[in-house]
Amino acid sequence: MNILNIIEKKRDKKILTKEEIEYFVKGYTNGEVADYQAAALIMAIFLNGMTDQETTDLTLAMANSGDILDLSTLGGIIVDKHSTGGVGDKVSLILLPIISSLGVKVAKMSGRGLGFTGGTIDKLESIPGYKTEISEKEFMQNVKEIGISIISQTKNLAPADKKIYALRDTISCVESIPLIASSIMSKKIASGAQKIVLDVTVGKGAFMNNISDARKLANTMIDIGKLANRETICVLTDMDEPLGYNVGNLLEVIEVVKFLKGEMPEDVKQVVLTLGSYMIKLAGKGDNLEENQNKMLENIKNGKALEKFKQLVEKQGGKKSSIDNIENMPMARFIEPIYSLKSGYISKINALEVGKIACELGAGRVKKEDNIDFQAGIILNKKVSDYIEKGQVLAYIYTNKSEAIENAKSQYLNNVEIQNEKIENNKTILEIIK
Amino acid sequence: MNILNIIEKKRDKKILTKEEIEYFVKGYTNGEVADYQAAALIMAIFLNGMTDQETTDLTLAMANSGDILDLSTLGGIIVDKHSTGGVGDKVSLILLPIISSLGVKVAKMSGRGLGFTGGTIDKLESIPGYKTEISEKEFMQNVKEIGISIISQTKNLAPADKKIYALRDTISCVESIPLIASSIMSKKIASGAQKIVLDVTVGKGAFMNNISDARKLANTMIDIGKLANRETICVLTDMDEPLGYNVGNLLEVIEVVKFLKGEMPEDVKQVVLTLGSYMIKLAGKGDNLEENQNKMLENIKNGKALEKFKQLVEKQGGKKSSIDNIENMPMARFIEPIYSLKSGYISKINALEVGKIACELGAGRVKKEDNIDFQAGIILNKKVSDYIEKGQVLAYIYTNKSEAIENAKSQYLNNVEIQNEKIENNKTILEIIK
Repeated sequence: MNILNIIEKKRDKKILTKEEIEYFVKGYTNGEVADYQAAALIMAIFLNGMTDQETTDLTLAMANSGDILDLSTLGGIIVDKHSTGGVGDKVSLILLPIISSLGVKVAKMSGRGLGFTGGTIDKLESIPGYKTEISEKEFMQNVKEIGISIISQTKNLAPADKKIYALRDTISCVESIPLIASSIMSKKIASGAQKIVLDVTVGKGAFMNNISDARKLANTMIDIGKLANRETICVLTDMDEPLGYNVGNLLEVIEVVKFLKGEMPEDVKQVVLTLGSYMIKLAGKGDNLEENQNKMLENIKNGKALEKFKQLVEKQGGKKSSIDNIENMPMARFIEPIYSLKSGYISKINALEVGKIACELGAGRVKKEDNIDFQAGIILNKKVSDYIEKGQVLAYIYTNKSEAIENAKSQYLNNVEIQNEKIENNKTILEIIK
Repeated sequence: MNILNIIEKKRDKKILTKEEIEYFVKGYTNGEVADYQAAALIMAIFLNGMTDQETTDLTLAMANSGDILDLSTLGGIIVDKHSTGGVGDKVSLILLPIISSLGVKVAKMSGRGLGFTGGTIDKLESIPGYKTEISEKEFMQNVKEIGISIISQTKNLAPADKKIYALRDTISCVESIPLIASSIMSKKIASGAQKIVLDVTVGKGAFMNNISDARKLANTMIDIGKLANRETICVLTDMDEPLGYNVGNLLEVIEVVKFLKGEMPEDVKQVVLTLGSYMIKLAGKGDNLEENQNKMLENIKNGKALEKFKQLVEKQGGKKSSIDNIENMPMARFIEPIYSLKSGYISKINALEVGKIACELGAGRVKKEDNIDFQAGIILNKKVSDYIEKGQVLAYIYTNKSEAIENAKSQYLNNVEIQNEKIENNKTILEIIK
């Protein structure tokens, strides 16, 4: 077996064997396969596709390229949750404390943001003191003690996926269903998930721009789940406009805390309740989805979910008081309103562009090495289907880069559409595939 | 403009502009575009193809990536000749002295062999003293003085092509018509050719295994020639069995000298005369192809062609006497006959496999850095359509590697087919496209 034959096979639309896929993944991880050879193979996969079996073999080979976390000592069924990414997507930070407060064990490794998509780990790091990089032992200990821990993916978690993911980004090979599916599932499997609930975002601010691609991705991941013996449920959710009101790390944590105090934007609420009710079900803590949702709302009302979030923060090195006072934390130096140039009903807010603007304001990374400004971001004042008068505030810009303000304003205005007739807000939950 | 967008465009089957192609070629030559990005783009080109205009733009961008030789000071029309490669292909070494002896100026840069294909430069270097790497000035001077010089491609000749060619080899992207065509034509243009005659080999021992691919390649190169204002003629020749009898560097030079003395294997003769008659015509030295062929045969008979070859060798640092005594040069330590295991007519000798065997015996390079053993190779004793008795010699192995002998013998036997009925030898000249 050699890499030239493997590249040639995929180039010629042939199906790779498990052994060939393992040879590539091992070889690329240990450096025997060169970057340029991996790049050629990845492009051939992008263009010629992969069968479900090939995608599963790739997933497992990438999962096995590093440590596989054994969560069995925690007891119970460990259900993982993942979103395919979006703008303003703070669902994990809301959802996980809620289900933890209902007795579902949460042992979660999350990623950082890149480009227009945010990452849970960056958001958590905007909370003073919160340590996202702790030892595996401490991670397990935290889950045992308080039922929840959320940390950064360990260095040796699916290293092959890390390398391939970074490569794809530099060779225009991101939007490939087998590559996206195997990347997500390899990390879930390596981080010990027994069952998986996936939030597959659809729309302008998502990797999948249309429902049919999203369905394909969902079905691919469900098939991988079946072949890899990890029950998987996909919830397709709308990501045409940003989720909720706040975009940016600290700003999103503020929205998380508000949510846990009962101030729930409708779109965020739909996603949190739907995903949560399935996670509770898969964890074996309640078969009735509606009841599960009611229990979640109950624990928001009675404060148990917020209390769990505070416990999490404290356990990871932060202070409970920083959550109580989150809205009083130092904010960005410049907070600038964007005024609407006309009156009418908002029909579109382009999530992708809002994500890019937030990135330019300092909230995201253009390159992996970039630093993030936790204070930077955007707070929407009006969402799709809202009425706005000319001169009213559409959104607020938060930044420490004065030079970025004017461009951000005009970009934002360019990416909001206003019309005379009210449009009904689209459904947030589009489909559930299992 | 950036490389990610360019890769994405070709990935999505869009047509690249001249500027985008130049951006890639310049960037890859100067290191701004990484190997893995070039690899992804090359694979996308391999799979999604290129239009004639794109291929021409790539050709010219690669030609312009280094020095462009100006041969106009030599006077007359400079016609270049190139073969797409084969096994036992010593045509240049025979043909160029002949036409030079007829007053056609020959200023030729040639390449080295890689894999199963030999290279003119390696063959010349098997002549003691012959210097293939001389200055451009000396090169031009030699042509002025004796009408012919054959040297190795200078370092700065189409450096982009060198880099892309080497990369293609490591990512299974060799057999692509636009990439092969642009590689060949870029070197011809950079080395100053005003008109070009191409020997497009077809068959087992060629890059183009069938006539329809060969036609496509020929037409692509002719179209590039038109768009780049270099008249180009393609002669499609058979490369199913090795050309002539000798395969290997010194062994082929011996066959060259014999040919120039009048001992002409029919297949080599056909190729030499056909290509030569077109070169003479393009150079403006005779419109009648048959007459041109007769003049060539005449100069073999009267010894002028051989004398020109000796002049060339002397001018490049060798001795005329080494050509006179070429058959008395030290030969390989082991010369081993391969006996036929049965009687009958030879119907096939797989040129590709013969090339690989010669390579294993030391005659070729597996990797670019490998050294060549000039003495190694194979001399065929029987060719396709010949009758052989069981126990008679099919071929002789020449090698200094005793350990390679047994395998070479059995490989050779495996790749010769013998049958009861005589098959007519296929035509050597398959088609002429202009």
